[in-house]
Amino acid sequence: MPEFLSLVTPDEALDLLFKSLKPSVKVESISTEQALGRISAEDIISPQDLPEFQRSTVDGYAVKAIDTHGASETLPAYLKIQDEVPMGDTPDFSLLSQHCALIHTGGMLPSGADAVVMLEDTQALESEEIEVYKSTARGENVIEIAEDVSSGESVIPRGTRLRPAEIGGLMALGITSLKVAKPPVFGILSTGDEIIHPSQKTKPGEVRDINSYTLAALIKDIGGEAVPYGIIPDSRSEMLAAVEKAEQECDHIIVTAGSSASTRDLTAEVFNSLGEPGVLVHGISIKPGKPTIFAVSGDKVMIGLPGNPVSALVIAIILITPLIEEYLGLEGQQLKPELLAELTVNISSQTGREDWIPVRLSRTISGSYQAEPVFGRSNLIFILSRSDGLLKIPASATGLEAGTLVTVRLI
Amino acid sequence: MPEFLSLVTPDEALDLLFKSLKPSVKVESISTEQALGRISAEDIISPQDLPEFQRSTVDGYAVKAIDTHGASETLPAYLKIQDEVPMGDTPDFSLLSQHCALIHTGGMLPSGADAVVMLEDTQALESEEIEVYKSTARGENVIEIAEDVSSGESVIPRGTRLRPAEIGGLMALGITSLKVAKPPVFGILSTGDEIIHPSQKTKPGEVRDINSYTLAALIKDIGGEAVPYGIIPDSRSEMLAAVEKAEQECDHIIVTAGSSASTRDLTAEVFNSLGEPGVLVHGISIKPGKPTIFAVSGDKVMIGLPGNPVSALVIAIILITPLIEEYLGLEGQQLKPELLAELTVNISSQTGREDWIPVRLSRTISGSYQAEPVFGRSNLIFILSRSDGLLKIPASATGLEAGTLVTVRLI
Repeated sequence: MPEFLSLVTPDEALDLLFKSLKPSVKVESISTEQALGRISAEDIISPQDLPEFQRSTVDGYAVKAIDTHGASETLPAYLKIQDEVPMGDTPDFSLLSQHCALIHTGGMLPSGADAVVMLEDTQALESEEIEVYKSTARGENVIEIAEDVSSGESVIPRGTRLRPAEIGGLMALGITSLKVAKPPVFGILSTGDEIIHPSQKTKPGEVRDINSYTLAALIKDIGGEAVPYGIIPDSRSEMLAAVEKAEQECDHIIVTAGSSASTRDLTAEVFNSLGEPGVLVHGISIKPGKPTIFAVSGDKVMIGLPGNPVSALVIAIILITPLIEEYLGLEGQQLKPELLAELTVNISSQTGREDWIPVRLSRTISGSYQAEPVFGRSNLIFILSRSDGLLKIPASATGLEAGTLVTVRLI
Repeated sequence: MPEFLSLVTPDEALDLLFKSLKPSVKVESISTEQALGRISAEDIISPQDLPEFQRSTVDGYAVKAIDTHGASETLPAYLKIQDEVPMGDTPDFSLLSQHCALIHTGGMLPSGADAVVMLEDTQALESEEIEVYKSTARGENVIEIAEDVSSGESVIPRGTRLRPAEIGGLMALGITSLKVAKPPVFGILSTGDEIIHPSQKTKPGEVRDINSYTLAALIKDIGGEAVPYGIIPDSRSEMLAAVEKAEQECDHIIVTAGSSASTRDLTAEVFNSLGEPGVLVHGISIKPGKPTIFAVSGDKVMIGLPGNPVSALVIAIILITPLIEEYLGLEGQQLKPELLAELTVNISSQTGREDWIPVRLSRTISGSYQAEPVFGRSNLIFILSRSDGLLKIPASATGLEAGTLVTVRLI
């Protein structure tokens, strides 16, 4: 049972991986309506101006601005009502001098008009005439052609996560389908002679499989796809056979090792036997999750995670998230949901090791948050389920003092 | 075209709604594997202790702690290797005094043992014997029975959003299905004579439907379900027929009004004609989104949103989110993804009105965030797609100064 020869930092681990294997994005076309949360795999160029015509932003009267100049409450301008602008159509008239046309929000300005007077700044008289109480400038209450977007403008760059706003923008431009990144598919294997399927009754010494399900849920949440390969016994031949099958059917592989050092070594051995370059990282200076393995075979990433469910899930949150984001081709800053909170107690930590502490958040009367570590002697799964987020203690620190403002990554 | 008679605050609007109609949670059973993001609709009580047996947290030797007392590097204790603990099974031996048993992480302690010595604190000798270099306390490196969870303990309260950690906890307990809240179903109607389907070519005066898609995407994201009822012309009879159909088929209704005041009034009129108590809120002191309507008919909520896509989406984010959360039975604090950022410019605002400003976030060298408002004369959809989040200016403020630390709600 050898110990880890050389630990690397979390950043170094990802660097080693990406140096060995440049992630490539697979692409598929889908309907914009189904694209929520997907990542654009092409630059979206606007095929048109938006808006395509001058629109009113208010309910009121389309006017020639010059006809309202000098108008006030005491000295209103008088304009004849020439017509009403139909919604959804081109006005079939041209506005005359000293005239106005009733227009609704979103309506198209008639030719000859260059501003809109708000309804509340006018008074309709019995004759087909209005009083205007306010001087109006050219362009007032009007959206100009292409004010939102110009034809040929890049509106959504490749690598953007599509939120409701982007879905709306695409629909506004008539783009009802687009190319997005295909979710990278991870085959997930749980190993360990002590592990049984969750639907089974445990006998003494046995525990149910947790990792297959936490990892699948997280991967789905980040934008990947997970295929379960079940529970593999601690045997070299059976693990090799299962990993080879998963390698053929999936883009990448995650093996959660039985928790003992011997099965971890087995994982590394199996990864190395699958092809070059094999194991790149064996041990990361992070807690929890030190015994993590990163390996590459051909164009596939193979990850060995500790069997402890908390370690496996924390490593997946911290290190598999950026990996999946690379395979989705995400570009630009990725804003993680975080909250700033005041730490309630002192936490000590070992320098040279990045620590991630599960914390529970509570809100103070003033509205600020307090972060209280959810400690447990061993990393048990319900510790995470009692936590709202993870707090990072950088490798350079020897701990954090109570009262420190810390950033909590919501989980 | 009457104006709003009495505006209420956003909180008052929700209060009026919930006073008139107590949201009831509909329940369905699903497999735990499919439950990511769903809301538990029952208290989950642990049917067992977790762990169910004393487990080792390290690779090492199970010992009687007393046999190691006083052991040190210079004066090691000598223990005979009696056996090896099998993974996934009860050890078929009882540990003798002055003996030890090889045990792997996660292995079950043999009877007679009460602690585990870590492998690195021992040295195996040629004879079936080890040297122990460290005194070990009772319970050291051992997880006790029920250390994570006790039988009968409430582990996941009703109203919890199920994250990967909760999925894992349920599986650990063998709970492979559970009751969750059924997503509330919203029928969505877009009205306006100027609105066309996104797949159609626009003629002058026409714009494509945005709201049906942004709202459906957002509702799905929050945990609801959306059923589109298409584009309804600005006619009382056609709107009434469409709303009545949606009312029969869905839990709730959202009508995005054509943007003019007359169609907003039409929406209120149609809502009122459907049954008691009808319109509760007509106008909210919020920007964007003032012309919002909340109505109730029987046990259904009916919402009229402004036709402007930014107003409709912002109101949905700010006010329909808590509504859906009520119908999902979400309990406890709801942590929204937020980031703290420094405002880059002065923003003025009208007191008595809550303002939500779209902002773009950028990271400074020091790692902190700066929030820059994405202004546009009119609320155009690509303004939101260029924004990372929304910044709230409370009704009590007259604005915010550059340099102020503000909380940005990520969208």
